Amino acid sequence: MAKNVYLFKEGNKDMRELLGGKGANLAEMTCIGLPVPSGFTISTEVCKKYYDNQQKLPQDIQHEILEGIKNLEKITNKKFGDPTNPLLVSVRSGSRASMPGMMDTILNLGMNDSIVEEMIKINQNKRFVYDSYRRLIMMFADVVKGASKDKFEKHLEKYKQSKNKKYDIELTEDDMEKIAKDFKEIYKEVVKEDFPSDPKVQLLEAVCAVFKSWNNARAIYYRKMNGIPDSWGTAVNVQEMVYGNLGKNSGTGVAFSRNPATGENELYGEYLMNAQGEDVVAGVRTPQTIDKLAEELPEVYNQFKTIAKNLEKHYKDMQDMEFTIENGKLYILQTRNGKRTAPSAIKIAVDMVNEGLISKEEAILMVEPTQLDSLLHPTFTKEALNKGNKIGQGLAASPGAGVGKIYFNAQDVIASSKKGEDAILVRLETSPEDIEGMNYAQGVLTIRGGMTSHAAVVARGMGKCCICGCENLTIDEKNKTLITKDGLVLKEQEEISLNGNTGEIYQGKLAKTEATISGDFELFMQWVDEARNLKVRANAETKKDALVARKLGAEGIGICRTEHMFFEENRIFNFRKMILAEDEQKREEALNKILPYQRKDFEELYKAMAPYPVIIRYLDPPLHEFLPKEEKEIKALADSLKIDIKQLKNRITELKEFNPMMGHRGCRLAITYPEIAKMQTKAVIEAAINVKKEGINVKPEIMIPLVGDEKELEFVKAIVDETAKQIMQENNCTIKYMVGTMIELPRAAILADEIAKHAEFFSFGTNDLTQMTYGFSRDDAGKFLNIYYNKKILESDPFAKLDQKGVGELLKIAIEKGRKTRANIELGICGEHGGDPASIQFCNQIGLDYVSCSPYRVPIARLAAARAAIESKN
Amino acid sequence: MAKNVYLFKEGNKDMRELLGGKGANLAEMTCIGLPVPSGFTISTEVCKKYYDNQQKLPQDIQHEILEGIKNLEKITNKKFGDPTNPLLVSVRSGSRASMPGMMDTILNLGMNDSIVEEMIKINQNKRFVYDSYRRLIMMFADVVKGASKDKFEKHLEKYKQSKNKKYDIELTEDDMEKIAKDFKEIYKEVVKEDFPSDPKVQLLEAVCAVFKSWNNARAIYYRKMNGIPDSWGTAVNVQEMVYGNLGKNSGTGVAFSRNPATGENELYGEYLMNAQGEDVVAGVRTPQTIDKLAEELPEVYNQFKTIAKNLEKHYKDMQDMEFTIENGKLYILQTRNGKRTAPSAIKIAVDMVNEGLISKEEAILMVEPTQLDSLLHPTFTKEALNKGNKIGQGLAASPGAGVGKIYFNAQDVIASSKKGEDAILVRLETSPEDIEGMNYAQGVLTIRGGMTSHAAVVARGMGKCCICGCENLTIDEKNKTLITKDGLVLKEQEEISLNGNTGEIYQGKLAKTEATISGDFELFMQWVDEARNLKVRANAETKKDALVARKLGAEGIGICRTEHMFFEENRIFNFRKMILAEDEQKREEALNKILPYQRKDFEELYKAMAPYPVIIRYLDPPLHEFLPKEEKEIKALADSLKIDIKQLKNRITELKEFNPMMGHRGCRLAITYPEIAKMQTKAVIEAAINVKKEGINVKPEIMIPLVGDEKELEFVKAIVDETAKQIMQENNCTIKYMVGTMIELPRAAILADEIAKHAEFFSFGTNDLTQMTYGFSRDDAGKFLNIYYNKKILESDPFAKLDQKGVGELLKIAIEKGRKTRANIELGICGEHGGDPASIQFCNQIGLDYVSCSPYRVPIARLAAARAAIESKN
Repeated sequence: MAKNVYLFKEGNKDMRELLGGKGANLAEMTCIGLPVPSGFTISTEVCKKYYDNQQKLPQDIQHEILEGIKNLEKITNKKFGDPTNPLLVSVRSGSRASMPGMMDTILNLGMNDSIVEEMIKINQNKRFVYDSYRRLIMMFADVVKGASKDKFEKHLEKYKQSKNKKYDIELTEDDMEKIAKDFKEIYKEVVKEDFPSDPKVQLLEAVCAVFKSWNNARAIYYRKMNGIPDSWGTAVNVQEMVYGNLGKNSGTGVAFSRNPATGENELYGEYLMNAQGEDVVAGVRTPQTIDKLAEELPEVYNQFKTIAKNLEKHYKDMQDMEFTIENGKLYILQTRNGKRTAPSAIKIAVDMVNEGLISKEEAILMVEPTQLDSLLHPTFTKEALNKGNKIGQGLAASPGAGVGKIYFNAQDVIASSKKGEDAILVRLETSPEDIEGMNYAQGVLTIRGGMTSHAAVVARGMGKCCICGCENLTIDEKNKTLITKDGLVLKEQEEISLNGNTGEIYQGKLAKTEATISGDFELFMQWVDEARNLKVRANAETKKDALVARKLGAEGIGICRTEHMFFEENRIFNFRKMILAEDEQKREEALNKILPYQRKDFEELYKAMAPYPVIIRYLDPPLHEFLPKEEKEIKALADSLKIDIKQLKNRITELKEFNPMMGHRGCRLAITYPEIAKMQTKAVIEAAINVKKEGINVKPEIMIPLVGDEKELEFVKAIVDETAKQIMQENNCTIKYMVGTMIELPRAAILADEIAKHAEFFSFGTNDLTQMTYGFSRDDAGKFLNIYYNKKILESDPFAKLDQKGVGELLKIAIEKGRKTRANIELGICGEHGGDPASIQFCNQIGLDYVSCSPYRVPIARLAAARAAIESKN
Repeated sequence: MAKNVYLFKEGNKDMRELLGGKGANLAEMTCIGLPVPSGFTISTEVCKKYYDNQQKLPQDIQHEILEGIKNLEKITNKKFGDPTNPLLVSVRSGSRASMPGMMDTILNLGMNDSIVEEMIKINQNKRFVYDSYRRLIMMFADVVKGASKDKFEKHLEKYKQSKNKKYDIELTEDDMEKIAKDFKEIYKEVVKEDFPSDPKVQLLEAVCAVFKSWNNARAIYYRKMNGIPDSWGTAVNVQEMVYGNLGKNSGTGVAFSRNPATGENELYGEYLMNAQGEDVVAGVRTPQTIDKLAEELPEVYNQFKTIAKNLEKHYKDMQDMEFTIENGKLYILQTRNGKRTAPSAIKIAVDMVNEGLISKEEAILMVEPTQLDSLLHPTFTKEALNKGNKIGQGLAASPGAGVGKIYFNAQDVIASSKKGEDAILVRLETSPEDIEGMNYAQGVLTIRGGMTSHAAVVARGMGKCCICGCENLTIDEKNKTLITKDGLVLKEQEEISLNGNTGEIYQGKLAKTEATISGDFELFMQWVDEARNLKVRANAETKKDALVARKLGAEGIGICRTEHMFFEENRIFNFRKMILAEDEQKREEALNKILPYQRKDFEELYKAMAPYPVIIRYLDPPLHEFLPKEEKEIKALADSLKIDIKQLKNRITELKEFNPMMGHRGCRLAITYPEIAKMQTKAVIEAAINVKKEGINVKPEIMIPLVGDEKELEFVKAIVDETAKQIMQENNCTIKYMVGTMIELPRAAILADEIAKHAEFFSFGTNDLTQMTYGFSRDDAGKFLNIYYNKKILESDPFAKLDQKGVGELLKIAIEKGRKTRANIELGICGEHGGDPASIQFCNQIGLDYVSCSPYRVPIARLAAARAAIESKN
């Protein structure tokens, strides 16, 4: 029979999959002798069994859990449910991947009225006992019974007000007793039954509740955002309680072994004396910084510091730890690799290599590619910061430059963002319900909470600018205003700027400047480049984009979408004339007017990118996309073309398509109107000749889109070759160019061996390939994809993360067949997936030569490529 | 070095691919000792070489051809270009597949002025010599130089008028001399050079011209229509001339070994004395029927009759022969398997089995599946024929019942048909330029020409109703009217009815009746059913269609498209209400109103089809397809639904999609609105229970459309199973049903192993699969597919004929993977391809269990399946 329950001493850190991250690390720490309260872990497999069994715990597993309790009783010499020597436990979730705050926790489990009475008799700390009891009752109602905490919290608030007290800590033991008893009443009122007095019932219900919380809305959203499979499930950790709320010599805190915002090698954290863990994380009271502990309890501080360094060495990574001090004795309740900002991640990685703690390759694996995003985005200019009207100062919880209109709840932020506005989420403190709003916001500002508060942790995880604990600002919820200490009142929708690097808040919209790659970041990227096999190119049409891409490390252009060059005002006129031409001659006349622009564009691209290759994709979209849709615009066009509006409308109607995505586009245009391909070839080759004459090395690669049959490519390639030959002869100059195609239709993938006869390179157009393979129109699928996520039919957006099983299989088929015909065929990817780390890993695995992505994602792609190379080697 | 030129005695009938049909058969006849004028064949490979060599004959091949002439000189004891003993030859095309009249022929080649003079001296038949010469000149101008025959023909016509003669044959030898000399002048005028006097130049240019004619517009169109690959090329036959225009004892004719219209076992054909072959085929004079020859030249007739029977036995098929009588001596110029009408094909096949000439399997291979089409279409009712106003009588050239508006040229027929009208093409005589118009027409009527005229041959090939040689009607070209001998004047666009079975023409539109399968046809279809492996099902939604399908041999319904059932007036209202419902409850209310209709439909289908299975495909199209588009209709709907028109318009806009083909449809609907799948399941199961209670055996198969991932199917299947279980429990009745899916997305094919976990059957939806694999929108591709055919990028419509290389490969992958998961998975096809013989052959080859097609194509599919089984066995 499978084992479902593991004592901490039975596990180790490599058992994440089975025990979850928290469980595995508690086991590991137990084994290396750290002061960890005893406990056991119910494995992630039980989570699956729970869901397979209609959300009930199978009988045999219930037995095993109660066996676990018996073992724990032996280890602790306490007895679960025994008033004279009660074993109290915490019940916490812990999945394979860290999902901070997403799932539920219950503390102090195992109490009931008679145990409470005996406990008071024995340890003579009535205040502590009732404090623990009232917490248990509320958590149990909330987590297990799904009742809102509201009534409990409001009652507590009212009670404090009636006693004229601000913090819980100021309440007396009698107050606590009264509150605990009131909570029992409230429990009965909201749950419609008595609080269960049997600790075993408490335990089994709590375990189920934790499993259930795996599928609460915020956990699902978090998983979707972070690409965590629904199938993993969570483990449950049952652990003997230790108490930070026993009195002055007790406390609880969280700390990082290094600074998670800057990466500085210093112990960094916060604690609260006489409190339980939840108080710190929830940001209820603003806590003390960890260095204060050195003064308050120097021995404990030093012990903790040593443990932190040891854990870092042991795990070879920066650690995020929870601890509790019970009557002066230190307990470690959790350790995990700490989340950190991008600059911090880079600094820690580089420092640890320099400290000899890790190898360069390990350093590379320590930085998540998407994290770099925040390093690549603009920061405020010095000038703007100097001139700016600073209206507040908080903790620099997560770096970045956030600018937007203020909104006071997540829904408003989402609505505003969906309208295309930039929004800043301003909250007293955030809770897990705010995650989606945070994701949409340009920045997050909270009035309460420290560096480890919910807002700070989540924002850092998202790479989102965040300022916390900004107590010099106040929120007027009713009037939806933010008020500075100078009395300035900012209304909803007014703009502010957040400097996440310093914690400073400014009125209005501050100017920003481009980011640069320098210092530790530059060094790190050098290591990255040494480690990777995949080249990284950029998708770019303009000189500006090409130069940015070069600066960020691009090694060529993977796709220049030539149609983007036709939209400019002075070009679109002739382009439209071309579309509306009645015969080939008129079409050629119009094309000849476009030629000089196109040639100049290509010259600029070649120069910006030399000596790297530039892939030029020929005209792709259906022609009707270039024609106006509104009556007014149509009239204007008819006037400027001097044609009858009716005639123009007829032509527009004629060009209309039912399914333009599968319509008259791609190489189908070049086959219908070879003169377009001729003009584009002229521009490509003439530009190359001009640039070559300046002594610059050019490598144009001509890419024919939407090929589904070798004959299509053969036909267009013949036009290209013929035109190129003629231009080269006329100019007495030879240009080495390549002709290749996009593989973006399933048929092209399946017949890649035939197509490769005419193609010197393939570039996988995975946007369209995903559309055709799934039969999903990218423009329409939004309507049902959300339902697909909700109903767990899809786990992620196949347009963002490559569908390796389906679309990926077509890629593999195409590569195998393509290479069969042409062993050295150049292979790359130019869909959106070229910038997605998971997809890049797949590209590395299937043996592409390069990926291509938008300029700002180039460093991300470089890092992802390096990580993929290292991982495939390991 | 490859051999390019073959003397007739070097070949045989199995060398079709190399020598073309005509060449192979001339060789065969030569070898079995029939009186065939000597000659040689230039192989089809030379055609390819000609095109590869920029439409020039390579030097070495020119040599080889002239070597062929030398060999021919030895055999005939004549000399090419020698005035005293000239060898004259014909140069004719001949491709692997018969393409009657599509390519070019030149007769009498090798003449020039001095040869003409000597010939007259020697054989003392000046009329014949000049007749031959003038023909050569005109044909050479037309075929080799691409000049129009117009001027020549008009000149001849005028000349005859000036001499008051009607037929060429009435012209004297001096007339002929004058005409030949005039033709030389006209030649110079239109070709801008002298007629070439060097026979070798004539020969080589003529050979090139024949190769070139492989790619004339009508040949391309014919190939496209008949699925003949462009790559095959044509051979060229060079043959010693024999003359039917030597005088009264000479003649030329064509004949079939059996009647090609009815299949009667009788020699059937026509001939003209003192004429060359072209005169018969072109329908210039109405020729004599072959039985007249028995009187005129009984010996020749008997010799020909014996040869015909022998050829039939030799080829085991009805023969279509050309012959020439030169001064009383019979020559066979060509034999080939004769084209025939469908009834004739059936009768010949059955008769030949009965005669012991062929096996049943050979009989099956003798009938083309598509031919059956004409047998399955309606004929005029006896009553209508009795009452009808008969306005003319011609030859029953090709059977069928053609009704439509009359038009006097092909263009007008095409235009009218494209507007959706039924059109009848009425012509003096047809020429190859009319083919496209004939294809569009409902029937063809010609005033001149016999049973082997162009119109008759082509119409029979198309299975199109045709009446020829209707000389009691006249055409007034100028006024576009058709005039009966009673003086009735029918204007363009007036309706007539053609009875192709009798040759009778009626005024107006006669009523038709359904065809039945009986007699020889029934017997033949029994043989067919014994031979095939593939089952044949029908696509049907209505009781009527299901009954027709049963009558035509369907063994189940392969797809019932349930959405077709929603369009009826009293249903669409509730269906629209469902679409526009604001919540699940309202949607269910509307669905409940549709349920009884749907249930009744299914009951009728089950009954019509029992004991065979019925596949019910769940709602597939995007919902917006069911909503009105026109302002007026929208208003009416808003009124009847009692909702605000603005609100309705908003909803319509909301539902609109950019690419509906890849939008919110198929199983995506059932996933979004499970209540639709629930209602449909209720209808399926309740109907089955009701029918079963009547003691009828039902086999519903529920088909979920547009599945791309196993989870989609799993989700919908769960709804189906749950609903079915509930209904069955409520009714205390068990129904065996299957749940399966369409494989119509590339992803479904690629992941068929996963999908098969939940699918008891796959039905290949090759319409959508073709769309997605090619990225062709069926509704839009028309715009560029014609260009694709013209530019030879595609050879046939992939929506009509399955793309075996691309789409077919996906089918193979899906079958292999599907069977890996579920060895006995039921496999079928329900796309349009299920009724296409070539595609059915492929379906047989890849091992499907059945094909499904429209009811009227069921017999065609049965025959195609039988042929495929026999061919794969052979």
